[in-house]
Amino acid sequence: MNAITQHRSVRKYSQKPVSDELLNQVLHAGTRASTTGNMQVYSMVVTRDTEVKEQLAPSHFNQPMVKEAPVVITFCADFNRFNKWCLQRDAEPGYDNFLSFMTAAIDALLVAQNVCIAAEDNKLGICYLGTTTYMADKIIDTLNLPAGVVPVTTVTLGYPAEEPPLTDRLPMEAVVHYEKYKEYTSEDIDRLYAEKEGLEENLQFVKENNKTSLAQVFTDVRYKKADNLQFSGNLLKVLEKQGFMNQ
Amino acid sequence: MNAITQHRSVRKYSQKPVSDELLNQVLHAGTRASTTGNMQVYSMVVTRDTEVKEQLAPSHFNQPMVKEAPVVITFCADFNRFNKWCLQRDAEPGYDNFLSFMTAAIDALLVAQNVCIAAEDNKLGICYLGTTTYMADKIIDTLNLPAGVVPVTTVTLGYPAEEPPLTDRLPMEAVVHYEKYKEYTSEDIDRLYAEKEGLEENLQFVKENNKTSLAQVFTDVRYKKADNLQFSGNLLKVLEKQGFMNQ
Repeated sequence: MNAITQHRSVRKYSQKPVSDELLNQVLHAGTRASTTGNMQVYSMVVTRDTEVKEQLAPSHFNQPMVKEAPVVITFCADFNRFNKWCLQRDAEPGYDNFLSFMTAAIDALLVAQNVCIAAEDNKLGICYLGTTTYMADKIIDTLNLPAGVVPVTTVTLGYPAEEPPLTDRLPMEAVVHYEKYKEYTSEDIDRLYAEKEGLEENLQFVKENNKTSLAQVFTDVRYKKADNLQFSGNLLKVLEKQGFMNQ
Repeated sequence: MNAITQHRSVRKYSQKPVSDELLNQVLHAGTRASTTGNMQVYSMVVTRDTEVKEQLAPSHFNQPMVKEAPVVITFCADFNRFNKWCLQRDAEPGYDNFLSFMTAAIDALLVAQNVCIAAEDNKLGICYLGTTTYMADKIIDTLNLPAGVVPVTTVTLGYPAEEPPLTDRLPMEAVVHYEKYKEYTSEDIDRLYAEKEGLEENLQFVKENNKTSLAQVFTDVRYKKADNLQFSGNLLKVLEKQGFMNQ
């Protein structure tokens, strides 16, 4: 539980190497996650080689932790292995569609979170890279991912060289609904975001970016519509190319 | 770590109620998960009312644990709350696209796995319901999910009334690749699936279903192409209707 409640994203890593034994233990924790039908339709690509990390870095907007972390793990939705098994066993796989992609992506993400918690429970630090879905096409090229395989998230991992504070969260009532979904009134929104908007670092963030609200920092600077649309088009093309959009 | 490595899906629950305090603790663990930009674009809908559980049951193919588990949690990709916040703060949200759906789905899934591990660490049992993505349209109706919200997975939760054995997993080398993806040879596939195919329960499964291979039980009985295609169409329509396919 402590590993979960004390989670912070770690972006600076010490040079202390992660032993094979510890890495295996953490990866093994990943494999114990629930997967649909116990099909295990995911893969973990573990990158430690400096050269391969350098090849991956541009796909993650050159965030320094990709090169600096001793271990980079790319979690992939993977029906390739399962499809090959089916074909070798006189079985016709029907997993070239969007539902199957979602099934495999869900597998990969539950595995990723197991790996992260196991890592943190062993004093390692982790950071998720959301860039994976933005640049899936480039990552596919770099890691030689065949048809049936799509990267969905990436985690950097190593011993922490920083101890960042816990980050803020919305109040529980913002994210939990009882029985059915309760739509938010404008008063609810004001109340639920008040603490976040009032944090010194966020006020500073608004000022630095010459905006009038924190929300504008998200919409106009960090996660812009034009970028989202471009990455959406890329990602849908990737699903098509990797064989998940057949009808 | 024990909660992770000892995970088994629990489908039979005792009548012992889950206290509000414990439930809150488990949900709080969910909120500590990493989310993209700390946007927390997910919601957890916690259903305990018998009548609402009965309404949800058909969407989960009437699997008995939906009615029998004391708690059912539907984890949703949710940009609705964030969009409302943006609009109230003179910010134009650009999150009506496929990338934003994936971002929110990833948030929801990491939160779900935190909840499950925290639950298991507190002696509760959990089971994931893969049916959520199959029947998202029905779940949206039942739980009154507005535009911007799509259910991605569901977990049933309660004190276990069974202690199932650990289920099998493929060998680590089946799911872990080093540096880059290593394509499987036909010999690899034979070796990696040999143990799974040789398990007494799986041999029995093949026999009961009058099949010649375990793979055929998946392709012809459990996860059939025709069903997958139908559910894919439904799910893409749901994404469109909930406002995640604008271009």
